[in-house]
Amino acid sequence: MQGTLEKVCSDVLEKIKPKPEEREKIEVLAKALEKKVAEAAAEYGVKATVRLEGSVAKDTWLSGEPDIDIFMRLPKSIPRTSLGETALKIARKATQGAKQVERFAEHPYLEAFIEGVRVNIVPCYDTRQGEWLSATDRTPYHTDYVKKRLTPKMRDEVRLLKKFMKGIGVYGAEIKVGGFSGYLCELLIIYYGSFLEVLKAFAKHKQRVVVDIESHYKGREDELPLLFNEPLVIVDPVDIGRNVASAVQSQKLYTFVAATRAFLEKPSLKFFYPSETKPLTVERLRETLKNRGSTLLFIVFGKVKAVPDVLWGQLYKSQRSLAKLLQTNDFALLRHTVWSDEENLNAFIFELESRHLPPVKKHLGPPLEKAEDCKKFLAKHSANPETVSGPYIEDGRWVVEVKRKFTDAVSLLEERLKDGGRSAGTAKEIAQVLSRGFKIFVNEEIAETYAENIEFAKFLTEFLSGKPKWLENTVKDG
Amino acid sequence: MQGTLEKVCSDVLEKIKPKPEEREKIEVLAKALEKKVAEAAAEYGVKATVRLEGSVAKDTWLSGEPDIDIFMRLPKSIPRTSLGETALKIARKATQGAKQVERFAEHPYLEAFIEGVRVNIVPCYDTRQGEWLSATDRTPYHTDYVKKRLTPKMRDEVRLLKKFMKGIGVYGAEIKVGGFSGYLCELLIIYYGSFLEVLKAFAKHKQRVVVDIESHYKGREDELPLLFNEPLVIVDPVDIGRNVASAVQSQKLYTFVAATRAFLEKPSLKFFYPSETKPLTVERLRETLKNRGSTLLFIVFGKVKAVPDVLWGQLYKSQRSLAKLLQTNDFALLRHTVWSDEENLNAFIFELESRHLPPVKKHLGPPLEKAEDCKKFLAKHSANPETVSGPYIEDGRWVVEVKRKFTDAVSLLEERLKDGGRSAGTAKEIAQVLSRGFKIFVNEEIAETYAENIEFAKFLTEFLSGKPKWLENTVKDG
Repeated sequence: MQGTLEKVCSDVLEKIKPKPEEREKIEVLAKALEKKVAEAAAEYGVKATVRLEGSVAKDTWLSGEPDIDIFMRLPKSIPRTSLGETALKIARKATQGAKQVERFAEHPYLEAFIEGVRVNIVPCYDTRQGEWLSATDRTPYHTDYVKKRLTPKMRDEVRLLKKFMKGIGVYGAEIKVGGFSGYLCELLIIYYGSFLEVLKAFAKHKQRVVVDIESHYKGREDELPLLFNEPLVIVDPVDIGRNVASAVQSQKLYTFVAATRAFLEKPSLKFFYPSETKPLTVERLRETLKNRGSTLLFIVFGKVKAVPDVLWGQLYKSQRSLAKLLQTNDFALLRHTVWSDEENLNAFIFELESRHLPPVKKHLGPPLEKAEDCKKFLAKHSANPETVSGPYIEDGRWVVEVKRKFTDAVSLLEERLKDGGRSAGTAKEIAQVLSRGFKIFVNEEIAETYAENIEFAKFLTEFLSGKPKWLENTVKDG
Repeated sequence: MQGTLEKVCSDVLEKIKPKPEEREKIEVLAKALEKKVAEAAAEYGVKATVRLEGSVAKDTWLSGEPDIDIFMRLPKSIPRTSLGETALKIARKATQGAKQVERFAEHPYLEAFIEGVRVNIVPCYDTRQGEWLSATDRTPYHTDYVKKRLTPKMRDEVRLLKKFMKGIGVYGAEIKVGGFSGYLCELLIIYYGSFLEVLKAFAKHKQRVVVDIESHYKGREDELPLLFNEPLVIVDPVDIGRNVASAVQSQKLYTFVAATRAFLEKPSLKFFYPSETKPLTVERLRETLKNRGSTLLFIVFGKVKAVPDVLWGQLYKSQRSLAKLLQTNDFALLRHTVWSDEENLNAFIFELESRHLPPVKKHLGPPLEKAEDCKKFLAKHSANPETVSGPYIEDGRWVVEVKRKFTDAVSLLEERLKDGGRSAGTAKEIAQVLSRGFKIFVNEEIAETYAENIEFAKFLTEFLSGKPKWLENTVKDG
């Protein structure tokens, strides 16, 4: 699988660059849709500028994965509250007969499937640069900027970068992924010049990366670290106040950095085309979990009524809160993650050193210097039945040994989640679902759920390994 | 037991101030001994200045506990190596017929028991102030200084302070205790004026206490914190370079501070006369240890041939090293202590949250910033059979889950101590004894040893409670 860097890149490009016939099909389809949307708007008497945007417009899309984004720029006179409805009405008419799904980002938009191609019909306001009324208003300006700055060669470099990021799991600005957007990939190629130069730059990553392509902050570069606090800052060429990388989670940035290093050292197609995960057999899973030594807890619950970005935002928030709850109660947390099919099955997964904790722990009181606090501490603990030993002085502070409130992680979670867990920090929609019921499975007790859901099985198999796929193929023989 | 501060102090003083008949007996005995030592020296042709020193000379001794210290100041011409032998020879002759024990501090000296009174006959060099050849050379100067500065009233204040410190367990400069010496008590009374004022000063203790009675450092007080780094600094009035409190362990200082506060709040005789410990019955001990929840490990071993100061120094050093060994291997150490009868029974005691640890732990690798370290880490752990999960990225660094080397604290200790444990940091003499054999008892397995040794039983009973006795009687109703 290994090869020279040039060979790997040209092999990948051969696969991901759309061939003339595919390109023609998409361009014809896009043109036809532009026309239909414009006609539908006119029929409804809405003054709309309709235009193709996104990766197809910029010619940075990947073969087999075209997304046709048709934007309609609407007059600022339309109120924010009815923008979505107006647009949906037009979009529905324009794609009549096709499979239609209403989606929601900042405002509603329509997703339709035509000739097997996903089409997004999205409204925005027709504003001047800098006078944005909604987040999507910038998109036409992004398209113009990228088209102006990208040479044909650079478009292929964007494709390579996108495919690499997809392969290692850091592509996509949606909350679920928290990774790099297509526009961000394009800007990186514009700034660094090529796929290889982007990789080289990130492989050297030490502290923060700050890129200001259009020199918006020329002469006052010192202000940048104060204005933006994310670890990766790419100033939007069309909006001085916006960091295009603000939604990139540090985990994704670090994964990208680590993968660039591994790839530069041993280039391989595997980075772009990771092998399919073969889930463990149920029998093997049972055995693995039985003998692993750690404890895996699965909090399994049902459907949450929310669009994906809201769902994942709430899942992540709740996951962090529950991790903190376990840690605050002294459980040694190895890892935690969350899984959702965005439909009927959701699961928080916590890997602990042990489900049980010893019944006694040390409780540190105030240092001797704080006389008043010491007095209160002694009054509270000196004749307390929960005190196993002490109070005694250690390293200049009062200390007691006390009984632990929770020695079983399952009891702790059951107790704190029975009302949904809002007080433990679970997000609102999640708490509602939890309050109606959930199940906690320990280790091999998850086997039945595992057996019933192949995607969950793949996810859990990968989680148990823990190792990124691209790592498996690069340093095994190190 | 509680009373006004004045009443408590006068009650204590009534008991500890020597009555005329006791005083006379001791003074007569001391005079006679001075004479005998001087005569013995003359007989051996040694030019010695013989004089009574210590608490009897300074009239700060406690009724029932006189220690007669007879010092012989010998010419500087006697070599250091033969100073002890010369002195022992004279001392033996002077106390012929009495029970004699050879002791060793900086050099050998003789302890004898005459008419039920402990007598120490100690050699030192007859030097001028500041030209010390050995540590004991300062003693006559200390005696002179204290006699000059203490009024009769202040001598009683010294007695109160000493008795208070004895009662709470912080009196004594020997290594075993690491507390306050008699001379230190006298200096504190000279500086603060009275027992009560000493208590008040230490009750307010915040950071360091630095006292320079004779203003040796007048005009350059700033230098003091740099010259001495102990938490309590009392510059010796007869030696500008010496901190009289240098041997006071911070644990003893803090205990004194905490006790002064408790006493000032609720004065009680209990501080001076703690109740005798009633050891738990063996049956009760078994039950207590079985139900406590924590794990107590006892490393029991036999006779160490060393004088007490050396023995305790090595015991403490070894105890600290073994505590560190357990902690480095992730065992949650609640407390640790050491017991010795200074004869045939020694025991390190470790209280752990649990004897056993879960088999898997998280091992943090280098942060992504350190590219070379990451490469080494991945090479080491990526295909290692000890790796349970990962390597994966977490909070910007590589991490693996690995199997623990030791999951049983007893196995760890047995493995590391089988050759005496020098590599684990045990002191030389202790390691020698350990290498010849030791036993590890877990929880109630100690019952037999406990049943055989009343002093050990008392010690362990107190350790299990953890609470200082003076605390029991002061804040129970807080």
